[in-house]
Amino acid sequence: MNTVCVDAMGGDLTPDVVLSGIDLALGADRDLTVLVAGDASVVEPFCASRGRAVPLVTTEVIAMGEHPATAVRAKRDSSIVRGCRAVREGDAQAFFSAGSTGAVLAAATVTVGRVKGVSRPALAAVLPGLDGHQTVFCDLGANADCRPEMVVQFAQMGAVLAEVEAGAGHPTVALLSNGTEETKGSSQALAFHGALEEAADAGLVDFAGNCEGSDILLGSHDVIVSCGFAGNIALKAMEGTAKFMAARLKAAAASSPRSALGALLVKPAFSAIAADLSGDVHGGACLLGLKAPVLVGHGHTSPEAVMNGTLAALRTVREDLCGRIAASLRADA
Amino acid sequence: MNTVCVDAMGGDLTPDVVLSGIDLALGADRDLTVLVAGDASVVEPFCASRGRAVPLVTTEVIAMGEHPATAVRAKRDSSIVRGCRAVREGDAQAFFSAGSTGAVLAAATVTVGRVKGVSRPALAAVLPGLDGHQTVFCDLGANADCRPEMVVQFAQMGAVLAEVEAGAGHPTVALLSNGTEETKGSSQALAFHGALEEAADAGLVDFAGNCEGSDILLGSHDVIVSCGFAGNIALKAMEGTAKFMAARLKAAAASSPRSALGALLVKPAFSAIAADLSGDVHGGACLLGLKAPVLVGHGHTSPEAVMNGTLAALRTVREDLCGRIAASLRADA
Repeated sequence: MNTVCVDAMGGDLTPDVVLSGIDLALGADRDLTVLVAGDASVVEPFCASRGRAVPLVTTEVIAMGEHPATAVRAKRDSSIVRGCRAVREGDAQAFFSAGSTGAVLAAATVTVGRVKGVSRPALAAVLPGLDGHQTVFCDLGANADCRPEMVVQFAQMGAVLAEVEAGAGHPTVALLSNGTEETKGSSQALAFHGALEEAADAGLVDFAGNCEGSDILLGSHDVIVSCGFAGNIALKAMEGTAKFMAARLKAAAASSPRSALGALLVKPAFSAIAADLSGDVHGGACLLGLKAPVLVGHGHTSPEAVMNGTLAALRTVREDLCGRIAASLRADA
Repeated sequence: MNTVCVDAMGGDLTPDVVLSGIDLALGADRDLTVLVAGDASVVEPFCASRGRAVPLVTTEVIAMGEHPATAVRAKRDSSIVRGCRAVREGDAQAFFSAGSTGAVLAAATVTVGRVKGVSRPALAAVLPGLDGHQTVFCDLGANADCRPEMVVQFAQMGAVLAEVEAGAGHPTVALLSNGTEETKGSSQALAFHGALEEAADAGLVDFAGNCEGSDILLGSHDVIVSCGFAGNIALKAMEGTAKFMAARLKAAAASSPRSALGALLVKPAFSAIAADLSGDVHGGACLLGLKAPVLVGHGHTSPEAVMNGTLAALRTVREDLCGRIAASLRADA
């Protein structure tokens, strides 16, 4: 029996959406127990009528717009801080929240703690690709400034996530840059490149060289690493493009009967692509480098996305993601 | 009468596509003369039967994959080098090529020369937005490493391009970062932010603060500036997302009759969005900071894209883009 703590108050949603997602997850896996963190009025009635849902009553909520570190310090009884504490104290093996990414990162780093040797945890997502290929992309923005040794750790940790979540056999790692040639890159990216080559020579990563922004979704790499600054910009640029195309298609549909019918007919396929791109299909972003799995969903989410996030957290527990990351980093020492 | 030099050998295309595009441009503007650079067998028969097409016979071609600086040095009689030289010598007022961006950048910087005070030219595109809004995005990758004063120049030059090409009245400028708060950013981006604030205090730019990757297509800024490293990654990530969505929609169409019909019906709208995003509608990317307009189209292009690029080059001549950029930068000195 595995227990995942789920933040019932997270995100821009009403708790009802999260609770519906927890119900879906409980239905999908008979060995799952969910520790449901949130207001008593929300979590107690829900858990009372369900066998594998346990209430974790909290009294505070960190909103999406609050300053992460300040909010985490001030709101010790928030669902995010209490959820992380439940993981540290062993009441749950993993935590999933659709709340503020920054607040979850801040709370988890302090409370759950880092794997020995990890300087800073990183945020990774498993992104869709063509023909069923999936790519782990890291760092999505936890670390705006990175040192070369941090990027090597992103590569090692990302490779473990690619094995666990994307089914990669011997994950290859590419470095995000402004061109595929090894001479391309900012001076910082060139330093990352050098450190990854050294790590490859030492047998720590299977480094495939530089890749471009278009390779994130269209390429064949198992892991793409970047500083969190460029990684966040790329992720948001991709999300923005998907939204832009959806909006433009909607506008085109409004302008002609032909396009309107077409848009209606492709809508399910388009929605599936958009959900896949948003990370909702995969369960959100995973914090790498912590002693226990902590996952963050999108702020605007759905019961299915909450289910996927909860089940992804469960998988990382069963596959011992964090233990394998610790072992991978020990090989380095 | 204005003369634009067009590279007939550029890109992954046969010269026929470029020549068809030149024909479209000549038809669209009766005061345009095109200096057509390329092999004698290509440009002489074409120009012989047209009143406003003048051949510029060249004997070498720089291919897409060649190292830019090396190729420009070695192939002095290539269409790219000769096209830039024609602009310097006054035989044409602007140059458009659908060839290697790196080679055009290298040749133009050396041959056409920089506006006084410009340390490095930058590459800018006018990107589509929602509700007809357009955003100038700069630098797209000409400068992987940037100093703060370079980013301020991108802002000043981009604002002039936004006035000329996107019809912006008093262009606002935002800095691409990993969050909108002013505390967000890599240490380098924070230095850019500080320099842009100082420039705003001095009345040189209308600085609106930080923006995110999603704001490139969805935001309301007139100009978004970035170092060329992050700018190139964002641009390629957006292009990759558009291609990914098109490929996934095609795959969905193959899987069900409903989606197949829908995809067929939305195809014109979808193609229009893709062309708009690729820059083909707008005429490609513009090198800012040179003494004369030099524009670069996509390698994979169409007669319409070549026409748009040629006409965009003509507009920048008529609107005196380079003179206005020089005046804008003098205000700084």
